[in-house]
Amino acid sequence: MTELAHIVVLHSGGLDSTVALAKAIEVYGADNVTSLGVMYGSKHNKEEDAAANRIAADMSVARVVAQLPLDGIFQSNLLKSGGPIPEGHYADESMKSTVVPFRNGLLLSLAAGYAESIEAKEVWYAAHGGDHPIYPDCRPEFFTAMAEAVHTGTDGAVRIHAPYMDSDKAGIVREGARLYVPMNQTWSCYQPSYKTGRAVQCGKCGTCVERIEAFAVAEVRDATAYAA
Amino acid sequence: MTELAHIVVLHSGGLDSTVALAKAIEVYGADNVTSLGVMYGSKHNKEEDAAANRIAADMSVARVVAQLPLDGIFQSNLLKSGGPIPEGHYADESMKSTVVPFRNGLLLSLAAGYAESIEAKEVWYAAHGGDHPIYPDCRPEFFTAMAEAVHTGTDGAVRIHAPYMDSDKAGIVREGARLYVPMNQTWSCYQPSYKTGRAVQCGKCGTCVERIEAFAVAEVRDATAYAA
Repeated sequence: MTELAHIVVLHSGGLDSTVALAKAIEVYGADNVTSLGVMYGSKHNKEEDAAANRIAADMSVARVVAQLPLDGIFQSNLLKSGGPIPEGHYADESMKSTVVPFRNGLLLSLAAGYAESIEAKEVWYAAHGGDHPIYPDCRPEFFTAMAEAVHTGTDGAVRIHAPYMDSDKAGIVREGARLYVPMNQTWSCYQPSYKTGRAVQCGKCGTCVERIEAFAVAEVRDATAYAA
Repeated sequence: MTELAHIVVLHSGGLDSTVALAKAIEVYGADNVTSLGVMYGSKHNKEEDAAANRIAADMSVARVVAQLPLDGIFQSNLLKSGGPIPEGHYADESMKSTVVPFRNGLLLSLAAGYAESIEAKEVWYAAHGGDHPIYPDCRPEFFTAMAEAVHTGTDGAVRIHAPYMDSDKAGIVREGARLYVPMNQTWSCYQPSYKTGRAVQCGKCGTCVERIEAFAVAEVRDATAYAA
């Protein structure tokens, strides 16, 4: 039996963080988990956050959303002020234009301070092995340093945990299937389109392509509605 | 001669960060320094930021201000949603209620991402030795870990620098005097009062007491107008 403790999960409403939320609930129970969202000004923040709010409500966990508008301050094509989102494969050089500099450092710092505020012992974030080539702030060496910064900077009160650091996105999809996560309700797409008022994922941007591939590799049926 | 590089200074408008800004200008030149402010919802944010804006303009450096409202999310008596600010000495136990959890982790993360966005090479922050007892996120072990997190998480693009880590506030006052910093224009007070529309520092809260002591220890004349 796991020792009772409160856990904050960085939960964007994307596939990875939603599976992490379900895993945290499996381990600690819904009463001991808080879903933390951050509105940082990305092009898909509204759709992600709407997905996260619905899912958190369905899973009966508390949800808190912080405002941290980076738009107009940071340079990234993922932000509303940035250039167009490239299509194609996630690993392509062009997708680097969508990196938000040091985003995970910022989100983990916010989550760590929030966790200390509510006396939660741990922050989970869902960086995975597939993120490593494009995102320096998803790599193990960043995680190790950041974990130490959070531990010392909160006087030992808070730890960070990355349950999928050694996994890949297909592994996350498999875990999602095992935990009956409504993965079709999660939001990945960087360029939302709307059909009769309903947000639809494009199926063509790098993050949609990566998501579709992950279901295929995991041999899990993808019930997501894509525009393409 | 120092190699040309752009520097981001976390500049609240307080005494320490204003002296750090002046030092960065001395080393790199005003054209190569940006003053970065963060409005995070503290009781004295407005007065600090007004001081920082005036000083940055006087020193001819660019100033950028980010919005990161923690009020109502984080727990701290320094935030507008928090309880009263205690009076007395900064080192007293009661002043711990004014700590904003992991604040420097958050501010450094924001500054690191902003620095990478504008291709600045370094972020300066003015934590000093006197901060260590009360603030875990001002201690050398936090700084070392956070420096590594920023370095790895920006793929080596950004470094952080804490010029006063081994100094104390009196040392900062001495450096401020050497650099002709208008220290009386800097803002420290946690509980601003207003006299005929002008913001005045109380002279009694922990941070005012610490500031007054630092001038006394440094044997530098304190031209600040205090209410007390």
